[in-house]
Amino acid sequence: MAPDSADETAIRTLIETWHRATEARDVVRVLQLIAEDAVFLTPDSLPMRGRAVFAQALHDVLKTHNIRSSGEIREVKVSGDLAYCWTDLIVTMAPLDGTSPKVRRGPSLSILRKESDGAWALIRDANMLASDSEELALKVDNLERELMADGPGG
Amino acid sequence: MAPDSADETAIRTLIETWHRATEARDVVRVLQLIAEDAVFLTPDSLPMRGRAVFAQALHDVLKTHNIRSSGEIREVKVSGDLAYCWTDLIVTMAPLDGTSPKVRRGPSLSILRKESDGAWALIRDANMLASDSEELALKVDNLERELMADGPGG
Repeated sequence: MAPDSADETAIRTLIETWHRATEARDVVRVLQLIAEDAVFLTPDSLPMRGRAVFAQALHDVLKTHNIRSSGEIREVKVSGDLAYCWTDLIVTMAPLDGTSPKVRRGPSLSILRKESDGAWALIRDANMLASDSEELALKVDNLERELMADGPGG
Repeated sequence: MAPDSADETAIRTLIETWHRATEARDVVRVLQLIAEDAVFLTPDSLPMRGRAVFAQALHDVLKTHNIRSSGEIREVKVSGDLAYCWTDLIVTMAPLDGTSPKVRRGPSLSILRKESDGAWALIRDANMLASDSEELALKVDNLERELMADGPGG
């Protein structure tokens, strides 16, 4: 495989910074990675349009949760001032009240743009983390496996 | 708004052709729009890798269903030989046995590549059509509204 270009490396660093800054509750740092006109797409709700709306949503979640976010970057491709990045994500939302954390897994496909200052910024994000019902189904599945593994009288 | 470039027009035509060819059960035509190394991402299952795997899946669905597919293109952006397209989709799966069709709605974010012959092809697709449980919730909601609109004795 060819070594990463400087642009590809910059985008991989952006994704890593996103994870670390989210975990550190550093909203200001996260927002530096997002273009003002960014749009966030998910299966469960209407598009979230604009950095300001994202900022408010993140701020609201952090009032009641810590977010642990990690992932494996599957692919980064750059053409001129446009790029895409495919990532497999694991996001854990841990309530500050100590109740059980919620884990969501799934791919994301992000579009990035090289801004006039030469820095890359996220402009579109397709978030395909498994929805709650999927997660619930997985939980049931895992519990059933556990019960079966225990066996009668186990 | 600036008029579309030739590339943008070509991509809009590709999306329209996709809808019409799917509805016409013309698998060969659909496959002409997809790169051999295409990857399809959804919240509900593992990535579907490659045109051949997609072809088999589409073939299998068409054995038992007609697919009506339409959508509104929200945005097309091109940079060199890479582009993205954000679309709001409505996909109706109508069983050939005449049972009730299933409607799914939601956004998709697609990455396209200009191939060596100058034609655009889909290479990555993030499909965020609302999952069955969402659709069910919507159905319940609609039925409840209908009941309320009817009113007592209506």
